[in-house]
Amino acid sequence: MNEVIHIDDSADPRVAPYVSIRERDLTGRPDGRFIVEGKVTLSILAERSRFTIDSVFIGETRLEPLADILAGLPGDVPIYVAPQTIMDAVAGFPIHRGVLACARKGEPIGLENLLSGETLLVLNDISNHDNVGAAFRNAAAFGVDGIILDERSCDPLYRKAIRVSAGSALWLPFHHGETGADHIAALKDAGYDIWAMTPGASATPIGDMPVSGKVAVLLGAEGPGLPDGLIGAAHPVRIPMAPGFDSINVATAGAVALSRIFEARQTA
Amino acid sequence: MNEVIHIDDSADPRVAPYVSIRERDLTGRPDGRFIVEGKVTLSILAERSRFTIDSVFIGETRLEPLADILAGLPGDVPIYVAPQTIMDAVAGFPIHRGVLACARKGEPIGLENLLSGETLLVLNDISNHDNVGAAFRNAAAFGVDGIILDERSCDPLYRKAIRVSAGSALWLPFHHGETGADHIAALKDAGYDIWAMTPGASATPIGDMPVSGKVAVLLGAEGPGLPDGLIGAAHPVRIPMAPGFDSINVATAGAVALSRIFEARQTA
Repeated sequence: MNEVIHIDDSADPRVAPYVSIRERDLTGRPDGRFIVEGKVTLSILAERSRFTIDSVFIGETRLEPLADILAGLPGDVPIYVAPQTIMDAVAGFPIHRGVLACARKGEPIGLENLLSGETLLVLNDISNHDNVGAAFRNAAAFGVDGIILDERSCDPLYRKAIRVSAGSALWLPFHHGETGADHIAALKDAGYDIWAMTPGASATPIGDMPVSGKVAVLLGAEGPGLPDGLIGAAHPVRIPMAPGFDSINVATAGAVALSRIFEARQTA
Repeated sequence: MNEVIHIDDSADPRVAPYVSIRERDLTGRPDGRFIVEGKVTLSILAERSRFTIDSVFIGETRLEPLADILAGLPGDVPIYVAPQTIMDAVAGFPIHRGVLACARKGEPIGLENLLSGETLLVLNDISNHDNVGAAFRNAAAFGVDGIILDERSCDPLYRKAIRVSAGSALWLPFHHGETGADHIAALKDAGYDIWAMTPGASATPIGDMPVSGKVAVLLGAEGPGLPDGLIGAAHPVRIPMAPGFDSINVATAGAVALSRIFEARQTA
């Protein structure tokens, strides 16, 4: 087991990265650190993540139940342990699960490094952490090779997004930056068929779409959907729905599209 | 416009149905009343719901912006209006949206009344309001004729479930009661092909499933999934997924399955 350090003062500088988590994570941390919460995501961080772990911070009653996961950590990662009250005081709100970890984002993945993937998911203006997390979970389930998010989409490494992603935000390669127009230009250059998901009646029904070669599924904000400029620059694709009810959740629309592509590639 | 009644005392008996909403709604109301929250769901309650509306309770600043929706209410529904502080005091927590309504569940729909529908969704042990709401939204999007929930599933007419359902819980017919085994027996008697959704490797891949006649899609709790007894009594169907990642959200799995059935019926 790694070094276990007992923390009995909420002002201990060793747990400074865990102070006021909520506020700091919403505004973003200039030092490139991010926080992971919960047992399942900690186990993925230990086993499968592409990020460097700084430390783990857990409630004292969790040391025993988490022993297996903690044994899988790199040897130099300190395990800070504190009573629940100290942990809550540090974080600034109750950490019911009693499991936190801090990791470093490191060098971001360049857009060009994702453009060899067979299937990509491209998120445009998705500013809700639940939706970004759910989109990652669905992308992982259907074998997507990478995710591209425009600069207005929110951070997949926000605590809640990681949790909703079922931890996939920790290993599924993604690039976050630029605009949807930039992404479409780069994807076209790289030979992708870009499916712009839209409820528009003139779009091609998804069942009629051939799947061959590289495909990128482009999703826009719930409510407004993708801007016309992006739809027009890509291949508009719609999921047939009942009359008078033309919208499902954006991550769900992604799942419906990606499941078709996954199956088409399996049977090809 | 209906009668507008100004409330200036949080103890006014006319707004008694709105007192301590959160606690009362989680335990269930013996009088069969339920609360609807938010503008979109109020408009569906007014236009398309199958329930009788008791009253509407809105913040005083909302009277003007909601005028169009309020004009669509049956003439005998009183509109209670109060300052935000009174509204929050009545409800017991901040009603940011400033829009509430109270309606009555009335006589529940009998299971037998749903068994003529072409496509049904059957929920087993879904105890999370977000998942029940999302399952309704997806069912509405893909033209499901009715939803059956076992007795352990949660109430689709809980405030949050209604909101997540995009209001479809207010008009999509559902039956809530009995066990999954009871449902399977009744569905078989009525001639349904029952698709038990499961990640099990021996289940039929969804792309190989013919859609003809009456189909019921059966979904189990996230995590454990459907119990073996129910899977064995139905037709096990799986959504192909990437190796090592065998689970998507239960409502999302419903969307993937229902979208296939909807399209197959369209092209048939």
